[in-house]
This record gives sequence, structure tokens and C-alpha cells, in this order.
Amino acid sequence: MKTIGVLTSGGDAPGMNAAIRAVVRTAVENDMTVYGIRNGFEGLMNGDVYEMNLRSVSNIIQSGGTILKSARSQEFKMDSGQQKAADMCRRLGLDGIVVIGGDGSFRGAKDLTSKGITCMCIPGTIDNDIACSDDTIGFDTAMNTIMQMIDRVRDTTESHSRCSVIEVMGRSAGYLALYSGIAVGATSILIPEFECDFEIDVVERMRRTIESGKRHFVILVAEGVGDATEMAKQIEEKTGVETRTTILGHVQRGGSPTVRDRVLASQMGNYATRLIRDTRESRVIACKDGNLVNYKIEEALAMTKNIDLDAYRLAHEISI
Amino acid sequence: MKTIGVLTSGGDAPGMNAAIRAVVRTAVENDMTVYGIRNGFEGLMNGDVYEMNLRSVSNIIQSGGTILKSARSQEFKMDSGQQKAADMCRRLGLDGIVVIGGDGSFRGAKDLTSKGITCMCIPGTIDNDIACSDDTIGFDTAMNTIMQMIDRVRDTTESHSRCSVIEVMGRSAGYLALYSGIAVGATSILIPEFECDFEIDVVERMRRTIESGKRHFVILVAEGVGDATEMAKQIEEKTGVETRTTILGHVQRGGSPTVRDRVLASQMGNYATRLIRDTRESRVIACKDGNLVNYKIEEALAMTKNIDLDAYRLAHEISI
Amino acid sequence: MKTIGVLTSGGDAPGMNAAIRAVVRTAVENDMTVYGIRNGFEGLMNGDVYEMNLRSVSNIIQSGGTILKSARSQEFKMDSGQQKAADMCRRLGLDGIVVIGGDGSFRGAKDLTSKGITCMCIPGTIDNDIACSDDTIGFDTAMNTIMQMIDRVRDTTESHSRCSVIEVMGRSAGYLALYSGIAVGATSILIPEFECDFEIDVVERMRRTIESGKRHFVILVAEGVGDATEMAKQIEEKTGVETRTTILGHVQRGGSPTVRDRVLASQMGNYATRLIRDTRESRVIACKDGNLVNYKIEEALAMTKNIDLDAYRLAHEISI
Amino acid sequence: MKTIGVLTSGGDAPGMNAAIRAVVRTAVENDMTVYGIRNGFEGLMNGDVYEMNLRSVSNIIQSGGTILKSARSQEFKMDSGQQKAADMCRRLGLDGIVVIGGDGSFRGAKDLTSKGITCMCIPGTIDNDIACSDDTIGFDTAMNTIMQMIDRVRDTTESHSRCSVIEVMGRSAGYLALYSGIAVGATSILIPEFECDFEIDVVERMRRTIESGKRHFVILVAEGVGDATEMAKQIEEKTGVETRTTILGHVQRGGSPTVRDRVLASQMGNYATRLIRDTRESRVIACKDGNLVNYKIEEALAMTKNIDLDAYRLAHEISI
Repeated sequence: MKTIGVLTSGGDAPGMNAAIRAVVRTAVENDMTVYGIRNGFEGLMNGDVYEMNLRSVSNIIQSGGTILKSARSQEFKMDSGQQKAADMCRRLGLDGIVVIGGDGSFRGAKDLTSKGITCMCIPGTIDNDIACSDDTIGFDTAMNTIMQMIDRVRDTTESHSRCSVIEVMGRSAGYLALYSGIAVGATSILIPEFECDFEIDVVERMRRTIESGKRHFVILVAEGVGDATEMAKQIEEKTGVETRTTILGHVQRGGSPTVRDRVLASQMGNYATRLIRDTRESRVIACKDGNLVNYKIEEALAMTKNIDLDAYRLAHEISI
Repeated sequence: MKTIGVLTSGGDAPGMNAAIRAVVRTAVENDMTVYGIRNGFEGLMNGDVYEMNLRSVSNIIQSGGTILKSARSQEFKMDSGQQKAADMCRRLGLDGIVVIGGDGSFRGAKDLTSKGITCMCIPGTIDNDIACSDDTIGFDTAMNTIMQMIDRVRDTTESHSRCSVIEVMGRSAGYLALYSGIAVGATSILIPEFECDFEIDVVERMRRTIESGKRHFVILVAEGVGDATEMAKQIEEKTGVETRTTILGHVQRGGSPTVRDRVLASQMGNYATRLIRDTRESRVIACKDGNLVNYKIEEALAMTKNIDLDAYRLAHEISI
Repeated sequence: MKTIGVLTSGGDAPGMNAAIRAVVRTAVENDMTVYGIRNGFEGLMNGDVYEMNLRSVSNIIQSGGTILKSARSQEFKMDSGQQKAADMCRRLGLDGIVVIGGDGSFRGAKDLTSKGITCMCIPGTIDNDIACSDDTIGFDTAMNTIMQMIDRVRDTTESHSRCSVIEVMGRSAGYLALYSGIAVGATSILIPEFECDFEIDVVERMRRTIESGKRHFVILVAEGVGDATEMAKQIEEKTGVETRTTILGHVQRGGSPTVRDRVLASQMGNYATRLIRDTRESRVIACKDGNLVNYKIEEALAMTKNIDLDAYRLAHEISI
Repeated sequence: MKTIGVLTSGGDAPGMNAAIRAVVRTAVENDMTVYGIRNGFEGLMNGDVYEMNLRSVSNIIQSGGTILKSARSQEFKMDSGQQKAADMCRRLGLDGIVVIGGDGSFRGAKDLTSKGITCMCIPGTIDNDIACSDDTIGFDTAMNTIMQMIDRVRDTTESHSRCSVIEVMGRSAGYLALYSGIAVGATSILIPEFECDFEIDVVERMRRTIESGKRHFVILVAEGVGDATEMAKQIEEKTGVETRTTILGHVQRGGSPTVRDRVLASQMGNYATRLIRDTRESRVIACKDGNLVNYKIEEALAMTKNIDLDAYRLAHEISI
């Protein structure tokens, strides 16, 4: 029977623990031996592992973060580090490892694959910026965390008839901003995928909304788009509405996962482990139109994903 | 330009307000006149309506329940009541109405259609028991509410090494029980769609789990399956584990909607209003594989939906 | 240096873990040895203990329930059981134990004291029915849990213009019902401390409120007062308002503790451990007017506490 | 019978709506006429008022912010503005007004009193920096909001074995930082009331905690103490632990109030309105040792409040 390892890598995301749990439980149910690898590829290189059983993953499905911890590794970026990790896999007798993380982690898995190690990759990142998969583990939770925080900001924004410019995570991907923006009724949503005309898309929209009788405003800005504090200054100048900035920060990464994230993580962890039981080929697990599918890592990394134009149009049409 | 009405009918669901908001905003943006109809078909028959504008739906996207309220109507079940409602539509100059509700409400819309009134139906029910649509407005919120409550119950269940039998809503549909059951790691999930062998699926599973070292258990039961209190008694007798029952009740229907429910409701409300602008045919809006589609009402009502067998299998494989 | 034990007993309450954490940390900081005793007095009799250190209580301050678990013990109710527990204390070299629980647990501590064991008692119960202390650990969290659940029920109650009769915990104490009732604006609050005239205090109040234009109602009933389902029936009959019952159940016992409960638990655990370091006399820790004080166990058990008449009057005056 | 007004002023706080509700309901129950004054003293000067009844305050007890809105007024700071406001009170026939806000609002009330207007002041501010009162409306909610956000940050801090420096509100008052810091187990808490030795109170404490095996850290900084980003840099340099900054911002001001805040607000609103019914003297309502009391405005403004030294010591003793 096979022996596998499981690790989390890159930025943590709510639901990673649910995925670890599913990997461990599925492995044990299928008579495999399973090792938890601490601190991602760094821990793999150093053999920082422990054997896990059914009870190692009790009561973690509801926890944010990752019990296996995560770390960035400079050494693993080099061929020598990758070789060291592959050697360690052989020494530990690992037939394959499950890698839970984002694009960067998948590239690490690809490197490891080239050293002869089977890797099953599971998309875990709050940003939803994995091209091959409709959804990633952590995205749903992060959207809801953002929404709940903005619902709170809105109380004070409304009480003082102000404008709030709110910066959310997503350096190169506007998914978090777009969907949470629709959910809170943001007057404007600025994301890296669309070039925005500040005068038309923010200032003019605010003016038009003021005419309809609205007195408080939320402007949502994805991290990668620009300086939220500078925008706030311009808005105040041009509209006369008192404007404040809030940067939501690391709060967005944590918290107990939602149902969707726990279920998606459980499904992906289960599927990845069954694949690693049956095959020797490295793959990326993905969710397409509600079904689990898998791709070669190179194939997955080469894909691109377009943000939903209709959702963006919708936001404009009903948030006035 | 057209004049439309919007009503909510049947059991309320979180996200209905977001749908109403999208209908009103889309209508106004498209130069239509829009009336809010209070108390569902009952209010329609009696002309209990008011004209709505952009600001009528300010600050409701985050509210549970429905600002238009809902009511059951005996009179509307009869042909005379339906005729009365259709006459009122004509008197009010309504070119069509948007009906937000469940199967029962869609049947009402079909009856109204037969009297010459265009109806656009939007699936709003926490049970997710609308066959033509993958998701219904309110389902995601209700799942998360259930999960959060069970996460709390689990604290005390674990502290006392007990078993909790928890009854959730879903008279004829096990969606809520199945997905929230996976999310909380329920030892067994009993739903109307699968006949369960109490001895094998509950008692034996608990015994096996006890052997692995687990001391506390959550058994999830959909409303329609049987008497939760009776099951608790049997479990205690057969396993020796102290067992308590919790019936989650109406708490499941309320609360501020999740991102998914607010977005889905916004999309469906927008889509329904655009359809009613462009057509005279009654339709049911649905969400299939992430896209909005529409069906004839009869067609939608004739469909059946199968619960996900893989999800049920998954629950069994990893909740041990 | 002294060696102490810590146990939780009776019904669990959110914040017990914060108290355990404070006991352990304070003990270690004061060079004492500290044992965790599992399953309350049952575990004490059987020597089910383990030594704890600073890291044994990492990351538990935010968890509901109790990591030491709780259990009822028939054997400990008898003199022989108490002797067995006292003997075990001596065998383990325990100079004293911290007992976190309610009235019943304090009586156990009194019995143990009579066998020569020093006990410091900390009031931990969601019911707030410890006479000597203004607040108990878990009360604040439970009130907020109840309030949040009723806020959800209210959404659906309002959407359907119904009355909801909601039963909350508190067999002999109405604190939970009274304060959460004020917080949700309940039309009537029925608690064991006041005899209620159903006709005047419920039916008449509802009728008067209906006259002011209100259409939905929440009636809060403490567990000990009567049959909520029966009351719902009578309300529907007498007022004509459709009425539903919700029994909140064990959800009320769990959940991550509030700031107040975490702080109170930390203060009490710290104080109890310093007392046990300095004295050999058994005491009950209490909170009076914002300060920590301590009483002899007999003295504490003999006290009575009156529910706040002004709060009850207030509820009547503003919930109309 | 008397006629009164009610306004909210200064920064908004969760629970202000519950206070408004109690004022209106108590006034109506006591046959007084009550006007809502919009936008604080600014609205008072301009006569921006409307008559309120029992139903004007339905379904607001659970809402953050203030339905009467708040605004700063330059004009009211001058004698001419105060005279204008007093004249407006007379024109509207107001026998007195209830002012809900912080220290600045109380000074405004004092000025208005000197122009012959009776003012009842209710302490509403999240900062808890009203010297005469143990608690202020909004403080409990803000503490819990902060705690919940830090619980989320901690997930990611722990997953990456990092240090998080978190800045919370409280320019001149450390109450929010101190109690939420105890509640989240912050390694260090920096507040304006205590001069902190960065080397001893932060760096050394972290080093000592690292020795005990801890790998993640939360450092809580009140707004007024210093530059959180700069501190983070120093911590990373001196300890070698990767350190990130989070500024919680305006999220802290909003949200549905806790039970304590709703009850305190209800009690204070009720008490203030009964006082204004019975007297012509301006007062500040306060809560001391669990009881409601009142002070002359000058007296209240002259008081000073000391932060709890024991709580600060406790934080140091158990957060290691």
C-alpha cells in the first residue's frame, strides 16, 4: 500500500484544514500511510514530518489557517533544494504528496515532479486566482469576511453621510473585490482586470447617486489598482463628500471556513487522495461547473481565467 | 415603457430583499415603473401595492426576511381568486410581475399566467428544492446558519462526550442536511432521498468511530426523515453514549444573507427584470453550471433534481 | 512550592477554557506545578490527570466548551467517593484544586473540603444563577448567542407578521431570558422569578401593541416557566396572530466566548490561583460591583440573589 | 405635558439606536411629545427635526450607527451658534433634549444649558473614555468586534509563525486595547496610560515567550501610542520574527450591538427621559458599579478615570 505526504504552501486560506482532514481520512480509509509535512516545501526538504491517523485531524474542519503551517523557502527555489526535497521523499518512502496552495505552490510541485515525485495539487488561496478552477479553497470565506466587515463600516459611513474607500486583497485578481462589492452594494468597484476612468466610474457615479438622494458611499478597491488613500483625497475634493480610507488587511485571510469552503476542501482532498492512490502522474485538481476535474500541472499553469463581465455590468446597473 | 410589480411568496429566505432591490433598480434604470406588492398573492388580489424608486430599496441588501412580506392565501388557490388578482394587475396597469418564492409560488404564477399575466419566477427558498436550478436564494445562508449553530452545539457535545441528534429543515429535500453535515463532520446524515438502515448507518458507524478514539458525535437528521427524539433514545440505548436532541427551528430561515445569496439574488432579479422588459412570456429563472437560464413554468415544475450521490459517499468516507 | 489541580464540573460554559488557561499560566509563573484533571470529580477519583505547562493552554482562550471535559459522577455524591477523591489528591501531592462550575460543583468542593482538601471555586455557568457573584463565566456569551439567534428568528417572524414564542435556558433563573429579552425587544418576557398573568402580561400587551401598528411579536419564555408550545397555541387562539414555537436548545451552551467572559475568566482563574498559593482555606471567587472578592463555600451557597426589578419594569415600558 | 428632542452627536457608536428607541418609547409612554433631531447640534440649529412615535423606532434596536445621523458643527462651537440652537428649541417648544455622545457632545450640552436649555447627556462612544461612567454605549460591541477580527488575524499569524502588530482605536484611552488584548491573549499591550519600555515590554517578552515554545505573537497597540508600522519593523529586526501590521480602522465603529450595549442603552435612554420629565436641571447619566446615577455636566466633565492597573498586570502575567 502507498505512503503519501500532505503539505500546505504559500499564503494560508480558510478551509486548508478541511482539505488536510479529507486527505488524511481518505488515505487511512484506503489503507495508505499518510505523513503530515510541516511548513510546506521547507519542511519537506528538512524531513519535518509526522505520521497522521484518523484522530490527528479531529476538530480541525472548523478552524482557519493550517495545522501544518506554511512557509516560503528560498532554498527550494533552487534546483539543489528541489533535489533535496525529492531525496527526502524517497528516504521517507513517500509515493507522492498532496500540495495545497496557489500558483506558486503548483510551480514548486512541477519542479518536484521533474525530480520524479508525484504531486497532487489542490487550489487553496483566498484570491481565487487559479485559472483552471472556478473556485479555490478560502475564496468563499474571504468574500464573506470582507462583506461582514464592510457591513460594519457602512453603519458608521451612513451615520456620518460619508464616503468610505475600502481596499481589499487581490494584487492581480479582482474576484474578492467584485463579488463582495456586489454584495455590499458598493457604488464603484475598481479591479485590476478593468481599466477604470476615475472621473466617470467613480466621481460621476457618485454625483448621479447623490441626485437620487443617497448620502453615503462605499468605493471598493482591489489592492493592485492604486493608492486608496490618494483616491479618498480626490473623491473628497471632487465631490465634497467627507471620505475615509479603510484597508482591511490580514483579517481577510482568517476565520472559520464557510460551508462551501469546507465542502469544496473536503471534496478536493478526497479526490486528490484517490487519484494519488491510483496513478503516478502529477495533476492539479480543479472545480469546473460544479464537477471535480484534473489537469496536468503545466496545462493548469498555462490557463487563463477571465473575470465575469456580466457581474461587473450588474454591479454598475444596480448599485445606484 | 412597461410597468411591473414584484412580490415575495411562500416561506421567506435570506436574499429575497437583495432580489427585490435588483428588480427595482433594474426596472428604474430601464425606465420602467415598478410597484412593490405586499403579502404575496394575497396583497396582489387586494391591490396592496406602492410605487418604488431607487431609494425604496436602499440598505436592504444585507437584511434577512422580505420587506414586501409574505403570506399564504386560501382565496388565491381558487380560480376566482386568481381572476381577482389578474383583474387587479390590469387595473394597476401591470405588464407583468416578478414572483420570488418556491415551487408553490411558481404554481401560483402558472395560474396567473393562464389568466393572461406575464410572470417571471425567481427561486427563493432555503431548502434548495427547486428542480430546475442548481441553487436557490437563501440556501447558502441557511447552510451557514446551520453550520454555525452546530459548531456551537459541538462545543458542549465534546465537553460532555455526548452524541447530539440535530434536526434541520428540509421536509422533502436533504440538501441543507447533506452539505451542512459534511461541513460539521457529522458522523451520520439522514436525508429523505436515501433510505437509511439505522443499525448500519448510525449505530455501526458510531461503534466503529468509538474504536478509533472518538468520544463525541453529531447525527444530522433532515426534518422529513423521522422523529429525532426517538432516534436519540435508540442511540443512547444501543451505544451507551449519552444522547441529546436539538431541533434548530426557525432560526434557520433568518439572518443577513451571505455573499453568494446576495450575488445570486442580484443576478436573478436583474435578469428577470430584463426578461420582463423584453418578452411577454412567463418564465422561471434558474442557475445551471454557473449561468443564468430560463424555462417555461410548466417545464420547470416538471423537472426533477437528484441529490449528489458523491457528496453522500464523501460524507461517509471522511467523517469517521 | 505548591502543586495544584484544576477541573471543570457540571454543565460546560464558554470561557471555562480561558479560566483553565489563567490557572495554568498563573501557577507556572508562580513556580507551582499544575495538573489538569479530566472529567471533573469523576476523573479526580480515578486519577485521570496530566501535568500542564505554559503551552498546554495555548490557543484555547477563544474556544467554547472545556478542554478538561466535564462529567457527572454518581460515585462522588457518596461519602466513599469523596474520600476516594481526597485520597487521590494526597497521592498526587495536590495542595489544592481549582473547581470551575456551578452550585452543584461548589457543593462537591465543600464535601472535598470536609475531607481536608483545599478548593478554590470559580463560578462557571451560562445561567448566572450563582448567588454570591454578579456575573458568571459563560453568561455574557450565552446571552449574545440567544440574541443573535432571535435576531434571525425575527426576520422570518416579521416577514410573515407572526408571533414567535421562544424558549431559552434557565430552569430556575430568568437572567438569560430577561436580558436577552430586553436586547431583542421582546413583547413579553416570562421568567420563573415573577408570576405572570398570561392574559394581562402577554395577551393584553400584544393587543395594545397591535393597536400601535406592530404586526410581529417575540415572546420570550425561560425554560422553567411552562410549556412554550402550549402558550403558542393559546396566543394564536386569543389574538388571532399566527404563532410558532422555537426552543433554542443546546446551541446556547457553546461558541467562542465574548470579551467579557474571556476577561472575567482570566481574572477569576488568576485570582483563584494566587489565593491557593497563599492560603489553605477553601473559597468561592465572586465578582461584586466590578471587583473580585471571595467567600467561604458555605457562605456562598447560603446566599440568595434577586433578579433586577428595574430591568423587568424597563422591558415592559419600552417593548411596545 | 412636556415636549423633548433627542439627538446623537460626535462619533457614532453601536447601541445609539437602542438609546434613541428607549427615549422615544419612554417619552410616549409618559405622554410626552418627542422629536428626532437629525445630524446632531447642526440639525438642531437648523430645525431639522421630525416627530417620532412608538413605531418610528421599530426594528432599530439591533442596528449599528444612528438613525438620527451625526455631524460635526463649526457653527455650534461659537456662541452665536449655541444661541441659534437655543432659539430653535424654544421655537419648537422643546422643554429639553437628550444628547447621546461623548465628551465633546457633553461640552456642547453644557453650552446649551447656559442658554437656558435642559440637556440630559448619555455617554455613547466606543472608546469608554467618559470619566464619570464605568461603561459607555458602544464599548462592549467595539471590544467584541476587535476581538473577532484579531481571532481571524491570529489564524494566519499562527499558520506562518509570524508576529502581528495590530492597531486599535483609542487616541487617548487604552480601554479597547487593554480588554481586547486580554481577550485575545496578546503578548504585549501598548496603551497611552502606561509608558512602555519597548525593549522590556515587547522585545524581551517575545524572547521569553519564544523560549517557552511559542512561535506566533500578537502585539496590540492603541492608536495614540505610536506608529504601528515602525514598531513592526523594529520587532522584526530585533527578534528575527517576520512581522506584519494591521490597522483595524472604521470597522470597529459599526455592527449590531451586543446584549450589554443594547441593555445599557435602553436603561440610560429610559432613565434620561424620566429625569427630563421630572426636572429642569441638565445632567449626565452614568453607570457606576452596576447602578445608574447622574451628575451635573461640569462635575462629570471634571472627573478623571483611571485604567485598571490589575487588568494590565493580569495581561502580563498570563499572556506568555
